Amino acid sequence: MKAEILAVGSELLDPLRRETNGAYITGRLRSVGVDVFARITVADDASWLEQAFRQALSRADVVIATGGLGPTSDDLTREAAARAAGRALHRDPGLLEALRERFARFGRVMAPVNAQQADLIEGAVSLPNARGSAPGQYLDQGGRLLFLLPGPPGEMQPMFDAQVLPIVRERAGGRALVTRVLKIASMGESDVEQIVAPLYKTYENPRTTILGGAGQTELHLTGEGASEEEAAARVEELASGIHGLLPGRIFSDDGRDLAEVVAALLSGRGKTLALAESCTGGLVAARLTAVPGSSAFFDRAYVTYSNQAKADLLGVDPQIIERHGAVSEETARAMAEGARRAAGTDLAVAITGIAGPTGATEDKPVGLVFLALAGDGVDRVRRAQFPGERDRVRAQAAQAALEMIRRAVLGLAPV
Amino acid sequence: MKAEILAVGSELLDPLRRETNGAYITGRLRSVGVDVFARITVADDASWLEQAFRQALSRADVVIATGGLGPTSDDLTREAAARAAGRALHRDPGLLEALRERFARFGRVMAPVNAQQADLIEGAVSLPNARGSAPGQYLDQGGRLLFLLPGPPGEMQPMFDAQVLPIVRERAGGRALVTRVLKIASMGESDVEQIVAPLYKTYENPRTTILGGAGQTELHLTGEGASEEEAAARVEELASGIHGLLPGRIFSDDGRDLAEVVAALLSGRGKTLALAESCTGGLVAARLTAVPGSSAFFDRAYVTYSNQAKADLLGVDPQIIERHGAVSEETARAMAEGARRAAGTDLAVAITGIAGPTGATEDKPVGLVFLALAGDGVDRVRRAQFPGERDRVRAQAAQAALEMIRRAVLGLAPV
Repeated sequence: MKAEILAVGSELLDPLRRETNGAYITGRLRSVGVDVFARITVADDASWLEQAFRQALSRADVVIATGGLGPTSDDLTREAAARAAGRALHRDPGLLEALRERFARFGRVMAPVNAQQADLIEGAVSLPNARGSAPGQYLDQGGRLLFLLPGPPGEMQPMFDAQVLPIVRERAGGRALVTRVLKIASMGESDVEQIVAPLYKTYENPRTTILGGAGQTELHLTGEGASEEEAAARVEELASGIHGLLPGRIFSDDGRDLAEVVAALLSGRGKTLALAESCTGGLVAARLTAVPGSSAFFDRAYVTYSNQAKADLLGVDPQIIERHGAVSEETARAMAEGARRAAGTDLAVAITGIAGPTGATEDKPVGLVFLALAGDGVDRVRRAQFPGERDRVRAQAAQAALEMIRRAVLGLAPV
Repeated sequence: MKAEILAVGSELLDPLRRETNGAYITGRLRSVGVDVFARITVADDASWLEQAFRQALSRADVVIATGGLGPTSDDLTREAAARAAGRALHRDPGLLEALRERFARFGRVMAPVNAQQADLIEGAVSLPNARGSAPGQYLDQGGRLLFLLPGPPGEMQPMFDAQVLPIVRERAGGRALVTRVLKIASMGESDVEQIVAPLYKTYENPRTTILGGAGQTELHLTGEGASEEEAAARVEELASGIHGLLPGRIFSDDGRDLAEVVAALLSGRGKTLALAESCTGGLVAARLTAVPGSSAFFDRAYVTYSNQAKADLLGVDPQIIERHGAVSEETARAMAEGARRAAGTDLAVAITGIAGPTGATEDKPVGLVFLALAGDGVDRVRRAQFPGERDRVRAQAAQAALEMIRRAVLGLAPV
């Protein structure tokens, strides 16, 4: 089954605005085996909108429109959809009454303009909206399913999940898609590809795609089946094969990011952590403390940007910096040891590097980063050369620091 | 003039993928007075794609398609556009030769499949691509302008700016749009609206829209004129009126974010800064050190998550915390003073609060944050109650800390 999604509203075409309903609906439709063939954002223009509905209803099995159901003269979705479907709009007395009651509940009188929110396409069924005044609509147009939903994600999403998805799932014949994402922080895209391609290419179902990001490679496995269980079992089989090929490399297969995984590991094992950050400037601390409950393991971070701060706070011997430079294995090691000693934590990790655009020397280019970990009976250091500009270098360094913690806590060999 | 933008490629419909060419092109088209009425993302499907081109060419003055110009069988843009325009495709000998030369330059032999990249729609003009193998195309289809461009932003953007925009600008009769964004960190959307609406509503040109974000309100002024200068002058007039209504409140009108503005202020005045962060957990430090050259003013940050860390690093008297709590005006003040003393900087700012979801008490709800600034002859403290969940509270607290620095350095009254 093929779907088409329409997002209605001139404001969504603002270059600074991001339309998010389309991605949400695409993901949910895929979970019931329906592929989205087109996503359209259309201005509040009666003619363009009607044409968009007409084209969608001529080719898609499922058409889902969001937005344009409000009470103003800019809200043209109901009328445009009705025209495209060749049907009349009529004012539904039950909906009108419900609207009046809703206003009364908030101690207000309904303005006449709001009455158009009670207009229903001939033959359509109203979809209640628990969180807003605009109800949705569902029409079976000669076997093609048309849904009109409100634009605000907080209203649209629960309506979609509870009222739209069950209808689409049934019509889709109960085919289900399940996607699982395997995340790897310690290997580049092409290295992962080389190891896992010979396995995943033997599968037509699940399909596998590989995505590279800053300091992370993701494998997306999408399995199809007659039921969600069957699809999940297919994904599980391939996923466990991939786990076998990449022992200890996959840090997440449940959607969590690396900071969440590290936070859960440290909390679960009752380990405390301190950080000494130079080039990442607080990024690792900010990511870890973004996780609720991080105070269970996170004690403090020293963001030691200047050499003086490294000496003052971490007791780094100025001679080490003078001899080897602030960006060196020796300084990273001294920072980690100093942080652990000063904070009295189980573990400490230090990051020092050249984020750019300035600061590079002939033998120390932009992107050169040293990471060190000090802990009870553990002592690791890593020299890394990250590609890209300031933001990407910092993001990759932060990711590498988190992976270093994960591997040390799990007793995995350094990368 | 009305424009329609087509993004071609099934991978762009992945729920995790973000299509960015549309926003870029929309912004650039607005600068020459062309409004985008629809943006469409279409799968690599010959029939859907041809229909999308057919519809766009039936209603838009300018049609811009990105992607699908590569050498594989999935690359259907050329063929679909040609069919929709009712024109033939022919292989251009000059383009073919240029392609062969390009491969030779990289020491490779061109595979036969690549030859289709030399296919040109009858009557179209080829648009050279300096950064990739896929040339673009430009066709005047009975007064409607059709452009086919490659998908990678690094190839598309320079081609758009140098080759597409001049043609569109001339056709648009030289009308120009200029947008300026005024950013305010210290007032909510409705407070800003109340003060500036009576002024901006007297203008039809520029148009003004208000956008609220975490800890920030933006006013977007878009002026139109016969030239960019004329449009800019109209924007300037309204902008200076708004500046007058909001003295000291607008921190940026040139696109910079608050961290960049604060970084430039501190660098420019030769002031040094230390931070003491609790609930923001390194977020303020991470934002400031994201700015290139931040080592000129940024000395260090103490991310003191535990009470012990606040005592160890900042010398906060444990009795203050015991008496008033870690989230209190007194603790914030002691943290800022302690940080300034320990770091020996000109200024220090401290943030302590309850980010949630846990940690709230009856008289200290989630979102309560205290900010303090200590400096040479300056001493400020602010109690704030931020709405939202953990991420939003932290983002707003970080923004408030940066605004506190900006106002103190500029000698503006506290908010």
